[in-house]
Amino acid sequence: MSNLFEHSTIEVLIAAKLDGTITLEELLKHGNYGLGTFTGLDGEVIILDNDVYQVDQTGTVNHITDMSTTLPFASVHTPSINEQPLKLAKADFTLLNQAFATEKNLKNVFAAIKLHGTFNAVKVRVAPKQEKPYPSLLAVTKNQPIFDTKDVTGTIIGYYAPELFGNVTAAGWHLHFLSDDHQFGGHLLSFVGTDLEGSFEVFDGLEQHFPISDPEFRNHEIDLTTLKAAIEESEGFQD
Amino acid sequence: MSNLFEHSTIEVLIAAKLDGTITLEELLKHGNYGLGTFTGLDGEVIILDNDVYQVDQTGTVNHITDMSTTLPFASVHTPSINEQPLKLAKADFTLLNQAFATEKNLKNVFAAIKLHGTFNAVKVRVAPKQEKPYPSLLAVTKNQPIFDTKDVTGTIIGYYAPELFGNVTAAGWHLHFLSDDHQFGGHLLSFVGTDLEGSFEVFDGLEQHFPISDPEFRNHEIDLTTLKAAIEESEGFQD
Repeated sequence: MSNLFEHSTIEVLIAAKLDGTITLEELLKHGNYGLGTFTGLDGEVIILDNDVYQVDQTGTVNHITDMSTTLPFASVHTPSINEQPLKLAKADFTLLNQAFATEKNLKNVFAAIKLHGTFNAVKVRVAPKQEKPYPSLLAVTKNQPIFDTKDVTGTIIGYYAPELFGNVTAAGWHLHFLSDDHQFGGHLLSFVGTDLEGSFEVFDGLEQHFPISDPEFRNHEIDLTTLKAAIEESEGFQD
Repeated sequence: MSNLFEHSTIEVLIAAKLDGTITLEELLKHGNYGLGTFTGLDGEVIILDNDVYQVDQTGTVNHITDMSTTLPFASVHTPSINEQPLKLAKADFTLLNQAFATEKNLKNVFAAIKLHGTFNAVKVRVAPKQEKPYPSLLAVTKNQPIFDTKDVTGTIIGYYAPELFGNVTAAGWHLHFLSDDHQFGGHLLSFVGTDLEGSFEVFDGLEQHFPISDPEFRNHEIDLTTLKAAIEESEGFQD
C-alpha cells in the first residue's frame, strides 16, 4: 500500500503554530521525496531522493544535512509500484489542474508528481523566517518574497490533494521547484515547461501524522469558518 | 507509531456508494478492534480481538467468519503502547463529550476507547440493508430500526475524531456496542453505564485508505456544502 505521509496539517500554519514538531531524521523514515517548511516558516523545503534543500527568503538554496532540523509541516512519500512514467510536451498549472487532473481522475484521491526538464518561465514564493510571537501563514504570505526566472532546468515535485481534505491540507496541487544548478527554487506560483519527463502516482491513502506530544498543537483552537479560504489564499497558485 | 486505520470515508455513505470495497481479510491486517458496516449498509459491525460481529436490522447478532465479506466503510486499530487502562464510575455521551474529552484534551486528535461493564440503559440504531439503487446514509437513518435495553453487560468500542476531519468521518465519538451474551448491539445512540473498565488511547495519526481502484469512488462528485451536516445528522448520538 502506498501512502502520502503528512506531518501535521496546513491548519497549524494558518493557526500560527510555526515551531517544528518533527526532525528531518524522523521525517525521512517516512519518505525520500517531498516538501515542507522549517521552524518559523524558514523557507521552502524540497526533498529529492533523501537530499534536503531549503530555499531561504533571500532566494539562496541551502543543502541541509543537520538531521536534527525540525519542521512544523511536511509531506513526503517513497515511490511505490503505483508510480508510472510521465511525459508532458507542455505543462503549466492550468494543464495540471484541468486536462491532466481529468485524465488521471484525481478529484477524490491524493497523488504525487515529479517533473524534470526545461522551464520557459518559473515564478516562486519563499516563506520568510518568522520570530515569536508568530504570525499566521496567511499574514506571512501577504508580504512574501517572490522570485521569477526564465529558461531554467530543474525539478518540480509535489502533491495533489482532494477537495474533501481542503481543511487539512492545500486542495489541488501543492508544488515546489528546484533548479538543477541549485541557484533557484521555492513554492511554485506559476510555471511553463516543455518536454518534461518524470513520474506520477496515485496513493492508496494518506497517513496523516499529528504532533500529539506538543501542547500547542493539542491546545490550540481551530477556526473552521475561515480555514479553507485562508489555506487557499496562502497556498494557491497564480495562473 | 500508532494509527487509526480508516477504510474509505463516511462521505461515501452519504453519497450513497454502499458497495463494499475492502474484504474483512484485508481489513483485519490493519487492526484487530474496530467498527464498520457491510455492503448495502447491512448492519452494524463490531470487531473485538479479531472476532467480527454483525448486528443486523432485526437486532440479531451474527458472528461473521467469511473473510471475503466486504465493507464500504470501516475503522480499525491495533492497541499500541499508547493504550492506557481506563475506569469510569459513571459514563454517558455527555461525560465522554465534555468532561472526559476536556480531561484527555481530545479536540485535535483521533482516539480509541474500549469500555466493558454493566449498562443501566443502552439505545442503539442498526442500519437496515439496502438494495440498488442505493439511497444515502442520511435517508436510511431517517427510518432506521432503533433498539433499547436495560441492565445489560457488554462492551463499547469506538473512536473520537477531531472537528477538523468532520468532512471525512464523524467528528466526536463514534461508538458501537455488543452485549456479552451476543443478544444485543448496534451503533450507540445513548447509554448510561456504571463501574466501567477498559482502555483508551490517543493515536499518533490517521491512516486514511481509499478504494482507488473502484470507479464509483473515483468518479463520484462530493457535495461539500451539505456534507458535514449530513454526517452529523446520520451519525449523531441522542443524549
